[in-house]
Amino acid sequence: MFARQLARGCRGLLLLLPASSAVRFPRRSVSTPVARMFQAQEVGIPNSSNYRLFFKDANGPISPLHDIPLFAEGSNNVYNMVVEIPRWTNAKMEICLKETLNPIKQDIKNGKLRYVANCFPHHGYIWNYGALPQTWENPSHIDANTQCKGDNDPIDVLEIGYRIAKRGEVLQVKILGTLALIDEGETDWKIITIDNNDPLASQLNDINDVEKHFPGLLKASVEWFKIYKIPDGKPENQFAFNGEAKNAAFATNIVKEVHEQWKSLIKKEVEVDNISCSTVNVADSPFKISAEEASKALASSSPLGAAVPLEPIVDKWHYVALK
Amino acid sequence: MFARQLARGCRGLLLLLPASSAVRFPRRSVSTPVARMFQAQEVGIPNSSNYRLFFKDANGPISPLHDIPLFAEGSNNVYNMVVEIPRWTNAKMEICLKETLNPIKQDIKNGKLRYVANCFPHHGYIWNYGALPQTWENPSHIDANTQCKGDNDPIDVLEIGYRIAKRGEVLQVKILGTLALIDEGETDWKIITIDNNDPLASQLNDINDVEKHFPGLLKASVEWFKIYKIPDGKPENQFAFNGEAKNAAFATNIVKEVHEQWKSLIKKEVEVDNISCSTVNVADSPFKISAEEASKALASSSPLGAAVPLEPIVDKWHYVALK
Repeated sequence: MFARQLARGCRGLLLLLPASSAVRFPRRSVSTPVARMFQAQEVGIPNSSNYRLFFKDANGPISPLHDIPLFAEGSNNVYNMVVEIPRWTNAKMEICLKETLNPIKQDIKNGKLRYVANCFPHHGYIWNYGALPQTWENPSHIDANTQCKGDNDPIDVLEIGYRIAKRGEVLQVKILGTLALIDEGETDWKIITIDNNDPLASQLNDINDVEKHFPGLLKASVEWFKIYKIPDGKPENQFAFNGEAKNAAFATNIVKEVHEQWKSLIKKEVEVDNISCSTVNVADSPFKISAEEASKALASSSPLGAAVPLEPIVDKWHYVALK
Repeated sequence: MFARQLARGCRGLLLLLPASSAVRFPRRSVSTPVARMFQAQEVGIPNSSNYRLFFKDANGPISPLHDIPLFAEGSNNVYNMVVEIPRWTNAKMEICLKETLNPIKQDIKNGKLRYVANCFPHHGYIWNYGALPQTWENPSHIDANTQCKGDNDPIDVLEIGYRIAKRGEVLQVKILGTLALIDEGETDWKIITIDNNDPLASQLNDINDVEKHFPGLLKASVEWFKIYKIPDGKPENQFAFNGEAKNAAFATNIVKEVHEQWKSLIKKEVEVDNISCSTVNVADSPFKISAEEASKALASSSPLGAAVPLEPIVDKWHYVALK
């Protein structure tokens, strides 16, 4: 229920978000890393431009981009993932780079809240979609693989487990591979992962396992990204490597690179406009703020109000013919 | 919002359901038939076996099967459709034949509430799904086209307009064609329609228009019905006519036939067990009950309670390989 309530913004001022709290872990082993407890807090009017989803840890408000560790606690191969868009939803929610504490907000396009077109046969995003914290695709960096610049965002993640995650949930995920989308000329890696607590997780270790257990999903994912902006008048997107997914080792290296790029950002080794680097937990950052300052940033937000009803047009199914 | 609230059962004791009240009708012409006002009322605990959705008209509780006219008011080619399952949902809700006033309830299978498996790449039902009132597929009648018996239900309808309808909504629809599913050996016609108030409705008049405006939807629909029970251990379903959809004239004749079969039912010309034929509006039926009796039937239901949270497994995506 949680994701749906959140998506409609009708309940729950303060939402406890332990990793996958609502699901049973039939195959969870003793050695599985245990996540810290993160919380998400909604403010503003859901389905409006002033809606925000802030993050907290045990000590108060934090930035999901800078203050949630890349790696799950106690692990060097399980990653934290911040869920922005639950599967089968289409409100384009994303970590806001420029605002203090980087809350999740809905993207605005041409002055309107952005809903990604549902392109037949797909409904909304076909994975839980989000970002790896403490990563950044530097727009001044030319990617050696794609010869394109970074897209100035944390790296994107597709999580393919059976469960619909909650907006603002922090999952612990395994990396399985990556697609190299070229989105309007920018490199936009899509890291393919599965929730480490999914019952199938132990059987998925590399990209070939995805086709084995989820036949057709990779092909559908490539098609999805190719066409998703066409109903908005944009051209078909392209993929590097002819749309072939790269394997887990390759993807892990990409993540390592964008984690290093984030480090240069948070240490102020690069000059960037329009990104708030305020951090509570990165002790050696020149951008470090106190817990009190972070609390003030959240306290200055407007309180959670009643959701604006969605227009039915948001649910329209678009029929896009691929060449 | 309505459908989602209804689907989660969290709001709205009494729900006004004029035809398509929430949508603007950019092409609605003066001659479009205007629907009577129908209301839906939820009782019981949503997501439990005692949940029911009752129907009312201006005079009180009615049966959606017997008391909503087949034809929209003032028309002989626009039909009323009772929405049981909104697009992109999978709770198997249906008009309950055996209970007085035939409320919508969730089907139970093996003692559990039934959720139809999400078969990749589809999410839930891929149309608004429901039934035409005042129709009945007589199980003692061998269909001349399919050589199979009827499935003892009102005839099923797929509505393909852009809007997600609300559970319990009564749409006014145009007939475009039909598929002849053979579901576990029974004839189970699927009448293909579009909401008469959809902006595209004036351009859709027959089955070929469906492929023109919704390319791939008919093929996906056939595939959907072939595979939807496979995850539950059932065999692939079959179609008559090699899966070819029949045109609007053919479909209209089928509807005429099952309307006649319903007439024989409501006039008690056939003996049937296990179908409640109590009717408020069919004046010449031996099953006619008074408005007071109908009110009592509804009043005896338990009040609307808080919804049971859904299990995440309901959202699992199943990967079914078609032969």
